[in-house]
Amino acid sequence: MTRTPLWSAIAATLRSEISGGLYPPGARLPTEGALAARFGVNRHTVRHALAALAEDGLVHSRRGAGVFVATRPLDYPLGRRVRFHQSLRAAGQTPQRELLRLETRPADDAERQALQLAPGASVHVYEGVSLADGQPMAHFVSVFPADLLPGLPGLLRDTGSVTEALRAAGVSDYTRAETRLTAIAADPVQALHLRLREGAPLLRSRAVNVDATGRPVEFGQTFFAGDRITLVVTPDG
Amino acid sequence: MTRTPLWSAIAATLRSEISGGLYPPGARLPTEGALAARFGVNRHTVRHALAALAEDGLVHSRRGAGVFVATRPLDYPLGRRVRFHQSLRAAGQTPQRELLRLETRPADDAERQALQLAPGASVHVYEGVSLADGQPMAHFVSVFPADLLPGLPGLLRDTGSVTEALRAAGVSDYTRAETRLTAIAADPVQALHLRLREGAPLLRSRAVNVDATGRPVEFGQTFFAGDRITLVVTPDG
Repeated sequence: MTRTPLWSAIAATLRSEISGGLYPPGARLPTEGALAARFGVNRHTVRHALAALAEDGLVHSRRGAGVFVATRPLDYPLGRRVRFHQSLRAAGQTPQRELLRLETRPADDAERQALQLAPGASVHVYEGVSLADGQPMAHFVSVFPADLLPGLPGLLRDTGSVTEALRAAGVSDYTRAETRLTAIAADPVQALHLRLREGAPLLRSRAVNVDATGRPVEFGQTFFAGDRITLVVTPDG
Repeated sequence: MTRTPLWSAIAATLRSEISGGLYPPGARLPTEGALAARFGVNRHTVRHALAALAEDGLVHSRRGAGVFVATRPLDYPLGRRVRFHQSLRAAGQTPQRELLRLETRPADDAERQALQLAPGASVHVYEGVSLADGQPMAHFVSVFPADLLPGLPGLLRDTGSVTEALRAAGVSDYTRAETRLTAIAADPVQALHLRLREGAPLLRSRAVNVDATGRPVEFGQTFFAGDRITLVVTPDG
């Protein structure tokens, strides 16, 4: 006879309490210690149950803050000008950015082509994770032409915003020239950044942003957690 | 000591022959029998190697026709009017459709809302797989308001084209009102239709098409194989 593992039974109980609204979207679950006491099990078993819920995208943990019920997938309008963080704010979420990398190095072939750079030109690389209410929504890697925007890294570091850093660097307006979208499987590093399982579906967006004169100023790749974001394209976007 | 399994060594050989251009995109590989003779193994081992290549998206099999080298990911411009099959033709591919289902049934809540239908209204359901040069590219499920378009199922069956069937039904032009995009994992049935592994990343598109007066005429869901299609969104699309 096969017994249901304890962690699985605990996960099922929490799942029904979440779907029943006892723990609504955004709510914090009781601590591991409190759950262990409630179910009469050790913390390891509780952690196993919570990991199963996290794999299903039902909850997510925030370092030092606890485990939270996932919010519904966010709509993100893919407009010419709307920025992801503005869009999060409009949805009543608190946007944050975790900086992973800020460096200047020679452009590779794809970057040179996207930004129309001369051979040997360098790019600033800006990599990080976008969060909404503490939950990772997207992993992004943007590159900028270093010759055109020499002071950008400092501005990115100071402002934490591409729009503000570009404005301070003299690019007062920029628009999306073309966006290329596909679905890919999360690699182990992306899974770690986005707190997803390896192989989870990501919506990959590649876009070139141009300034008012049509000059490319940013080549950005964004990897959205598929169960947390819906990109909305409207004809007038 | 661990030995490399035979199927894995055969897959590696074929992989390097494909990447080296010996078998270019679209080419047919030798038959299972010919490969078994070449490598001195049984067909089961060859099938295992081919399955590994198919999982990586390098080859795909066509029932009764053989195993083919996958073509590069296709660009699909997400315009207001461009249709998927037109787009395939423009890319030099031969589009095909495999019909899975054509039925009329009561609309569910989501369909009623998308098509702005009264309670109890029915929809025609049109489900199938879109192929390009014999390779499955997308699994689609479209629903149409049955009261508005009573004769549509017969027209869809006769023409095999949504655009032509709608035109014959009196809808001479229709446009995409909004497209919602996200990434999901292929369920077992979708994996079967698209000849992918279960859990493979799919780009899901949900769109409502409206006629010239703004009346919804189609609510369509399309699941694109992530490694075979790139959706391209341009500001003037």
